[in-house]
Amino acid sequence: MLAFSKDDAYWMSQALKLAKKGRYSTTPNPNVGCVIVGINGALLGQGYHQRAGEAHAEVNALIDAATKRKKPNGQPNEIVQESVKEIDSKPVTFGATAYVTLEPCSHVGKTPPCALALIEAQVTRVVIASVDKNPLVQNNGIRLLKEAGIQVDIGLMEREASALNVGFNYRMTNNLPWLTVKLATSLDGKIALSNGKSKWITGLPARINVQVERARSCAILSGADTVIMDNPRLSVRVNELPTSEKEKFLLRQTQPLRVLIDGQNRLHDDYQIFNDGHPVLVFNAKHNNKLRSVNTEQFQVPVNNAPANDFSLGKQDSKDMQAESRQYLSLTAIMHELANRQINRLWTEAGASLCGALFKASLVNELIIYQAPILLGSDAKGAIDLGSIEHLEKVIKSQFDEVVQIGNDLKLRLLIKS
Amino acid sequence: MLAFSKDDAYWMSQALKLAKKGRYSTTPNPNVGCVIVGINGALLGQGYHQRAGEAHAEVNALIDAATKRKKPNGQPNEIVQESVKEIDSKPVTFGATAYVTLEPCSHVGKTPPCALALIEAQVTRVVIASVDKNPLVQNNGIRLLKEAGIQVDIGLMEREASALNVGFNYRMTNNLPWLTVKLATSLDGKIALSNGKSKWITGLPARINVQVERARSCAILSGADTVIMDNPRLSVRVNELPTSEKEKFLLRQTQPLRVLIDGQNRLHDDYQIFNDGHPVLVFNAKHNNKLRSVNTEQFQVPVNNAPANDFSLGKQDSKDMQAESRQYLSLTAIMHELANRQINRLWTEAGASLCGALFKASLVNELIIYQAPILLGSDAKGAIDLGSIEHLEKVIKSQFDEVVQIGNDLKLRLLIKS
Repeated sequence: MLAFSKDDAYWMSQALKLAKKGRYSTTPNPNVGCVIVGINGALLGQGYHQRAGEAHAEVNALIDAATKRKKPNGQPNEIVQESVKEIDSKPVTFGATAYVTLEPCSHVGKTPPCALALIEAQVTRVVIASVDKNPLVQNNGIRLLKEAGIQVDIGLMEREASALNVGFNYRMTNNLPWLTVKLATSLDGKIALSNGKSKWITGLPARINVQVERARSCAILSGADTVIMDNPRLSVRVNELPTSEKEKFLLRQTQPLRVLIDGQNRLHDDYQIFNDGHPVLVFNAKHNNKLRSVNTEQFQVPVNNAPANDFSLGKQDSKDMQAESRQYLSLTAIMHELANRQINRLWTEAGASLCGALFKASLVNELIIYQAPILLGSDAKGAIDLGSIEHLEKVIKSQFDEVVQIGNDLKLRLLIKS
Repeated sequence: MLAFSKDDAYWMSQALKLAKKGRYSTTPNPNVGCVIVGINGALLGQGYHQRAGEAHAEVNALIDAATKRKKPNGQPNEIVQESVKEIDSKPVTFGATAYVTLEPCSHVGKTPPCALALIEAQVTRVVIASVDKNPLVQNNGIRLLKEAGIQVDIGLMEREASALNVGFNYRMTNNLPWLTVKLATSLDGKIALSNGKSKWITGLPARINVQVERARSCAILSGADTVIMDNPRLSVRVNELPTSEKEKFLLRQTQPLRVLIDGQNRLHDDYQIFNDGHPVLVFNAKHNNKLRSVNTEQFQVPVNNAPANDFSLGKQDSKDMQAESRQYLSLTAIMHELANRQINRLWTEAGASLCGALFKASLVNELIIYQAPILLGSDAKGAIDLGSIEHLEKVIKSQFDEVVQIGNDLKLRLLIKS
């Protein structure tokens, strides 16, 4: 067990704060923050990763350090006279410590490897919160630094740093997106009266929070049922975001990918979601000729007759189908395809049937319930259809991860136990 | 608006802490704490009300002050020499300030009026958190003190003090008990699988907390359904209480009154609840000859044919009854009878049918949900049967009052909006 100092903890927490600024815009990359501290213990530079394809956190921090050396704080236009010429022969970061929330990369992607940039900057110590789960990087960045004689200390605030990139890490490890199911229910787990009436179960602050969660996601998943019933856009309503989140989300310059599952080709171009200029990906069993919008892509996934863990082609029409001949879209195949498309965090707003199928297929990692302080009664419509569970050992188990009051509602964040 | 000093706030918070000690034992009396502070700002005495029929908080505090004068702290057996004889001619509390969480009583009940005791003690100021809602007292205690020339300041920490006696206050104002419905549900509002399996939905810490809540209640309400299905005792399992609560509850020397609603006389003496030596009160439509235990009292309440707001004589047997001839026990009549019996806080652990009927009759003040982090699915058994609600305006509305994690579960306390 390494003993990190109080100063180490302070600087890493600053790096984490920086990393968080990228939560709305780095997709499909992880969030990373970096702080560089000089031999004398003063801040030299800081930075974070903003967008895929642009500079990584370490490079931004090194640039910040180099810029600050020439321009003292508060006097951006004045060039400082160097009093000692010899300083110029060494980089300003000579002997410095770099605090990075994620292992510096070792491979040439859209930008050169950060491990090399730190070596060139002649830092003598690198403190890393968490190791990169990307197989292209994992431990290679650390090895490069160590080979250059740099002291590398790993694991400070590992938990916080990993939590920030839970989607990226999960995809790297499992080739699946980190799937969150969002529900808005009454205290008794209902989403609508038995006659279907449901508008405004939760209050405005909770609905704004949903926009923030959507904005943090790589993609938003729903089913044909929801599109047909509610005709939603399932995009981030930018103007409803709080100012600071809005600024960060606008850096991203795209909407989260909308992903729809439509096993029976019930969708067509007239629904709003296909007409707002943002991309939609529709999973189905065979090509749907009613979807012709240029922003809409279709992808066919295997169907099979094994109902246990996959999603029915459509509950509504079950009367028309012989039970034995009913076919099911492979939800697992859909999730692997989304992982291949670099979807880290998949936010799901769907009906009881699709939500239940995702749970039964063990594809749900996180459940967020916005709980309104109302009772709708046992006759009302439930949020999740799990079919008939015969044994208590087979119920879906989870643990509370976060509970906050948002307006008059409660937001429960639960981690599903596998 | 009175400006209370920091010292006032400190002493009243001490008085509130004392009052809370009586939460398990003062039934049917309110919880009251009292602190007496001398002219020099030092604590003279403190006390709280422990049990009905025994001394009130003010008298206990005055006795404490008189005792302390003779016995300095830490040397209980030594009599202190009075250095100045003249002191003896005045009470030790001469010129003192009394902090009382509830208006001092003005009537002779089982003990003499506290307002007179304070006057005799020659205090010059009384600070009161909340006015007594008991019509025998309301403002009379304050009037007596003022007539004796004592400065009376009212309203310091009124909210906390009122919350402590919410049951007493509600009964005094409405001639109804403060009714709490307790549920233990899954995240999706279910209490059991569709086949009835339900054991251990919540964890041990939550179940211990239920014992604490029962111990704070004057009575525990349930229905014949629950007795027939689960054969519970519905008493406080004293040995499961945490040590400090256990000591306080044992002062009470009785169990909360168990109250059962049995419209169809389905209960008989073989159930556990009738055989543990503690009292049970059964509400029914006509006398039940199968209940002969000396600890069991029966009380007949009116039945009527107006189903809207009252409780069916029994859902199970509805097939045997013509819908038009079905009769209903008056839940409101039951509640008034319980108020007449001085039940302040009524803790309800009942089935979906009785819980729903209590909500529909607008008799529920508080809802406590122990929420386990599991999903049982839409097919499972719901906790509250509200029948079919047609309009969203008619759903049961509430507000979150307290949310705490207890073990792996969440405890939600909600105040129902009338």
